[in-house]
Amino acid sequence: MLVPYEQLHATLRDILVRHAMEPARAEQCARLFADASRDGVASHGVNRFPRFVAMIANGMVDAHARPERIGGRGAMERWDGHRGPGNLNAWICMERAIELARENGIGAVGLGNSNHWMRGGNYGWQAAEAGVIGICWSNTLPNVPAWGTTVPLIGNNPLIIAVPRAGGHVVLDMAMSQFSYGALGTHRLRGLELPVAGGYDERGELTRDPAAIERTQRLLPIGFWKGSGLAILLDMVAAVLSGGNATHDFSTAPEKESGQSQVFLAIDAASIGAAGQSESIADRIISALHDGAALAGEEVRYPGERTLETRNKSLAEGVFVDESVWRDVLALASGGELSGMTWR
Amino acid sequence: MLVPYEQLHATLRDILVRHAMEPARAEQCARLFADASRDGVASHGVNRFPRFVAMIANGMVDAHARPERIGGRGAMERWDGHRGPGNLNAWICMERAIELARENGIGAVGLGNSNHWMRGGNYGWQAAEAGVIGICWSNTLPNVPAWGTTVPLIGNNPLIIAVPRAGGHVVLDMAMSQFSYGALGTHRLRGLELPVAGGYDERGELTRDPAAIERTQRLLPIGFWKGSGLAILLDMVAAVLSGGNATHDFSTAPEKESGQSQVFLAIDAASIGAAGQSESIADRIISALHDGAALAGEEVRYPGERTLETRNKSLAEGVFVDESVWRDVLALASGGELSGMTWR
Repeated sequence: MLVPYEQLHATLRDILVRHAMEPARAEQCARLFADASRDGVASHGVNRFPRFVAMIANGMVDAHARPERIGGRGAMERWDGHRGPGNLNAWICMERAIELARENGIGAVGLGNSNHWMRGGNYGWQAAEAGVIGICWSNTLPNVPAWGTTVPLIGNNPLIIAVPRAGGHVVLDMAMSQFSYGALGTHRLRGLELPVAGGYDERGELTRDPAAIERTQRLLPIGFWKGSGLAILLDMVAAVLSGGNATHDFSTAPEKESGQSQVFLAIDAASIGAAGQSESIADRIISALHDGAALAGEEVRYPGERTLETRNKSLAEGVFVDESVWRDVLALASGGELSGMTWR
Repeated sequence: MLVPYEQLHATLRDILVRHAMEPARAEQCARLFADASRDGVASHGVNRFPRFVAMIANGMVDAHARPERIGGRGAMERWDGHRGPGNLNAWICMERAIELARENGIGAVGLGNSNHWMRGGNYGWQAAEAGVIGICWSNTLPNVPAWGTTVPLIGNNPLIIAVPRAGGHVVLDMAMSQFSYGALGTHRLRGLELPVAGGYDERGELTRDPAAIERTQRLLPIGFWKGSGLAILLDMVAAVLSGGNATHDFSTAPEKESGQSQVFLAIDAASIGAAGQSESIADRIISALHDGAALAGEEVRYPGERTLETRNKSLAEGVFVDESVWRDVLALASGGELSGMTWR
């Protein structure tokens, strides 16, 4: 079903206020959830909202906690998230990285002891809207086997890189597994095979069958050994810079996944180059991709291109919300309890 | 064949001096080539050396040029490589990023108008040896189709992330294609299939046949659309920060691949956290990987683990050098011309 953006935002906000979040913070927290669904990332938007409320209820998320600077030198700071709402903490730390970049050309924050940041792309768009390059990543609980083993030992640690551009920001938002568990479930429910191999079946063979991968829990890292290595390094840098948890420190129970470590990095390209030059370089790269593909009768999208199309459609026609999810949200809005929520 | 490290280094150094490179720079430039072979990356070590000398001869590499700071603010600087030797330029710019990180917690350099940096991992090891986290990447000529097209439009843009650790630095060095053309050729010559699909054959099917991929030039980006997106963003950030070339600006003729853009980023974790804490976090992550895999009777290597083993073996027994490559090198050493060198 389609829900007008403002209605979606207000509904989520009111539920957070009912759960004792301060109004200004509830406004912002709800906006980050609504923005994710508006941009086509419902899995970390409204679909995830009931679980977020449940984690305020079970004490894993402290609705009132604010992140705090606990160390730093110059352009690099360490913050403690105090287990506050992950998306608010992340937003605040990216704002701080942007401030640091305006002063120092580049700025970074290592945030530990936070919570799931929901849709990582939000903080890339945030940096790009501020006119700076943004790079950020988070660790997660162990949900992907490291290369060389069948046991989930690494996180799918999402990585975001964003470059500002008047004609549409370029924003990459990718996790280290080829598919998320959410994507496996969606394909299974629709009776679809995955478009490419997404993991291993019981015989240890690569497969496009989502149910087989759900059974083995052997998700494929992107690029096999390469994505496994990248996940290890992203986790290590996030934990070292924040002094916080690494992937192996997390409980594997999703309802207890709390205390994530994240890195937020901003670079003010305008401060070191000719004004407007950055913009024209980004434009030329995108033209080269579009034109080169078109010559072959094909089509290439730059990261973020489809997001903008989805956003515009959502704002014009309403934001797509799964009906059962919306029922859960409306139940929360009228003070009811969550029914049948699963943690995976 | 096995060549003692010191002999390998001295031979390469003397050839560079013969080609009019200043002795101290020749010493360092040769060391970077020898180190790559010593660490098991001959493709960007001694195997690449004859081509490097040929590019000094054909004017694409200016043996005397030094990189120059042309802009910056605080912890972020822009440098012009003046088409000097790519590995010397990269080394100098990583040194500068490390200096900036010591002052500001974090430091970065965007280097444009440089040349192929050869083995990117060298600069990760350099940062780790200095006790700081190092992140760097380079763009390349277009050699991989962007996702959505059959035409090579993106580079395989290597990305390096390094974390220092007394028990062995953790250093990831990965390109954005699942395999390099060098790896395809090696497998073909040995009559081997690739261990996983590495690209597409003439019918547009994924294949492990290296020769088929060489014919179509349809190398697979890691993680399909994900590696394609990451390659686009790495290229864009490098070109924007350096003000230099993007992938589409390069000639597709390898003998003219010059003017690369690169980013060097260093973070001094010790400056923002408790002394020794970073080290213990990295150690615990590696123990968790090793122990978790061992419980399942399997083995996981952290990025950089095999490198150290290869390095120790090379230093003890000699550095492996392909016999035909060594003949070319010795011919150069005695003032001869290159015979039968290919540019791919």
